Amino acid sequence: MNKVNLSGKFSLFSEHWTPKIIAELNDYQIKIAKVEGDFVWHNHSDTDEFFLVIEGTLFIEFESETMELKTGELCVVPKGVQHRPYAKEECKIMLIEPRGVVNTGDAESELRASNDVWI
Amino acid sequence: MNKVNLSGKFSLFSEHWTPKIIAELNDYQIKIAKVEGDFVWHNHSDTDEFFLVIEGTLFIEFESETMELKTGELCVVPKGVQHRPYAKEECKIMLIEPRGVVNTGDAESELRASNDVWI
Repeated sequence: MNKVNLSGKFSLFSEHWTPKIIAELNDYQIKIAKVEGDFVWHNHSDTDEFFLVIEGTLFIEFESETMELKTGELCVVPKGVQHRPYAKEECKIMLIEPRGVVNTGDAESELRASNDVWI
Repeated sequence: MNKVNLSGKFSLFSEHWTPKIIAELNDYQIKIAKVEGDFVWHNHSDTDEFFLVIEGTLFIEFESETMELKTGELCVVPKGVQHRPYAKEECKIMLIEPRGVVNTGDAESELRASNDVWI
């Protein structure tokens, strides 16, 4: 049985927009990422996506609004909904999604990261 | 698109061991609970269970060890594993599990709570 300390895991890497797996729950994965700057517009056609801000402020731009998520705030982006995360300053987030989800969804982008890196 | 503020949601109730749903991710539910005192030994034969401590200290007793989870620490209890959560002082936790999971799993207990209460 493994205990995971979020702060400890965040201290192990510095790169942005590269989700790391920290735990699995059935066929779902719990991931963390540091984000800063702009991500790409994308959607995930087959799954919702969960964002929880652990530290900092995350913006998620949708077609009709921009959501501002601060520390301790979360949202679920429904499947198929176009969105673009960005952060003005470095922000630490926790993600939950089914195993195998690619961070950039349907978008072709150099921000596409490996989707099977544990930390 | 709904933003959920964890502190705000926790401020809406005071009872212990009664998970409240705050978001859904596909067929999974994100729940929060306040816990204090002893829960019952139980297991969930068909699903893993995710615990994240938002504030306080949660203990999870297993047959061969007791895990101490502090603020910002998490663990996943594998399906079928007997466990008994408890907290010496009030602790705020976030849970993730498939829709429909009952908090007491296989155990008959007066601590069995409704599994479909949103907050």
